[in-house]
Amino acid sequence: MEHFADRLTAAVAARATPAIVGLDPVLERLPAELRRHANTASAAAEATEEFCRVVLDAVAPVVPGVKINSAFFEVFHQAGIAAYYRLIAYAHSLGLLVIGDIKRGDIGSTARLYAAAHLVEPPFSDVDPASIPDAVTLAGYLGESAVRPFIEAAKAGGRGVFILVRPSDPGADEVHEFAGFGGSVRLYEMMGRLVERWGRRSDLIGHCGLSCVGAVVAPKDLTSTATLRVQLPRTPFLVPGYGAQGASAAECRPCFRRDGTGAVVNASRSVIYAYEHPEMVQQYGADWRACIAAAARAFAADVAPLIQ
Amino acid sequence: MEHFADRLTAAVAARATPAIVGLDPVLERLPAELRRHANTASAAAEATEEFCRVVLDAVAPVVPGVKINSAFFEVFHQAGIAAYYRLIAYAHSLGLLVIGDIKRGDIGSTARLYAAAHLVEPPFSDVDPASIPDAVTLAGYLGESAVRPFIEAAKAGGRGVFILVRPSDPGADEVHEFAGFGGSVRLYEMMGRLVERWGRRSDLIGHCGLSCVGAVVAPKDLTSTATLRVQLPRTPFLVPGYGAQGASAAECRPCFRRDGTGAVVNASRSVIYAYEHPEMVQQYGADWRACIAAAARAFAADVAPLIQ
Repeated sequence: MEHFADRLTAAVAARATPAIVGLDPVLERLPAELRRHANTASAAAEATEEFCRVVLDAVAPVVPGVKINSAFFEVFHQAGIAAYYRLIAYAHSLGLLVIGDIKRGDIGSTARLYAAAHLVEPPFSDVDPASIPDAVTLAGYLGESAVRPFIEAAKAGGRGVFILVRPSDPGADEVHEFAGFGGSVRLYEMMGRLVERWGRRSDLIGHCGLSCVGAVVAPKDLTSTATLRVQLPRTPFLVPGYGAQGASAAECRPCFRRDGTGAVVNASRSVIYAYEHPEMVQQYGADWRACIAAAARAFAADVAPLIQ
Repeated sequence: MEHFADRLTAAVAARATPAIVGLDPVLERLPAELRRHANTASAAAEATEEFCRVVLDAVAPVVPGVKINSAFFEVFHQAGIAAYYRLIAYAHSLGLLVIGDIKRGDIGSTARLYAAAHLVEPPFSDVDPASIPDAVTLAGYLGESAVRPFIEAAKAGGRGVFILVRPSDPGADEVHEFAGFGGSVRLYEMMGRLVERWGRRSDLIGHCGLSCVGAVVAPKDLTSTATLRVQLPRTPFLVPGYGAQGASAAECRPCFRRDGTGAVVNASRSVIYAYEHPEMVQQYGADWRACIAAAARAFAADVAPLIQ
């Protein structure tokens, strides 16, 4: 079983870009031809799945992986969950790495079940083993016992986790810039140190020197991001906030190690809704598939220099 | 639309106990007659659902509400999610209040979808409106924007939220006792203050003086729990940690306001697996339904004095 960080590093090298496309599809923004009959949860899930398959087809030749956000499928209840797992299997069939964006976080006895649901091939004959993602995002605010079941599942299956350290939404600063009253270490710094500690055990480290325990680290000012990179030397970063959320490739640079490894950059809305952009429409007309493919290529090229 | 805190207060008064039974069913611990054929996810979900229906039947005459933990259904993928929502509707048909234990927490644009999935009656003809719970548990570590979509959905639908302030697992202390280096306010205290602030808007407060924005507060030492109760006067508490996790009724007392309102106490494993206890088996033999009903009655009676 190859180590997750080695697989991720190899996939990034093979596509020569650290670009990860995020699937956060909302029904109202799907191309009109798809959402026409979506007045049941089943039909809405079906339309969303159809859209996502086109996105996966469009981006698979260009990027090493995708991130699929569970919330946007849970909204269609069981029909959405079925689509979520089928899309993971489909992405795998196209050779993509898949990150399940689930942000779960609960005490150990519950975390064990969440890990079994989301990061383990289950012992059931009616579940496709290919429908389990290569990694998931997690919240680690309930401490090590809340993430340990996921870490052990990741190790056993050549999979990984990315634990929230610095979220992309400025609203999160309300909590993450907290340092007690009179304190000098902020919550995000402490979460970063904990993640590095949770992942530094030698049997969790791949040949590339990175752990299967990663962190979600949104780029803020260059100095604080660079400090996190130094403090978390073995932790791979999943970097949100690029594109629609405002961060540039230059702002993402400090998330990478000096040799260009150690991070992947996610863009969701700026790619999957590319057909809403006037300049894309001007070039590709109503061909929304072509717009998405072009946006994926532009994104992949924009962040490609970060790994050099 | 009656306010959630008023509904909760009335339901507790009607049953004369603040006892909430938590459904955290793991397949391996179900009565043997149920798990015999559970080698597919569908069959496992079906067995779990059947077990939970019996639990609901047994506890409905005794307690005001139940808490259903999403993780234990997600483990069966879409079949489990279908069971989760059906069980909520079934609990409602028995007159129970239902808390969906989902602990979701993500940035605002994603939180909007999680809220639509878990706390809003969806605009789909194939979804039973009764399958939406009366409240959900949340993580608030990404700040107000991560919980605001849930709070607005709660207000609009007469529903509620319980945001993690002090988790029951001692492992969470690693993070929740954090106060920066040299700081004097710990993370759980800050989260408590934020929750109180997020819920204090007048249109979020019910006739009983409590908000639809509640907190998950596990009892620790009596003094710190009592301090939280004083600092969060308008926040209803959902109290985990009783029973299998070790807290006594006396330790839960400081979670209640002086008039006996303001909190409900959850017990999960000590009730739903009552048939594993030798003293129960001695009394009821192989009648696991009777064991669960007896454990629910004992739990309800044990915490009943807390509301007096």
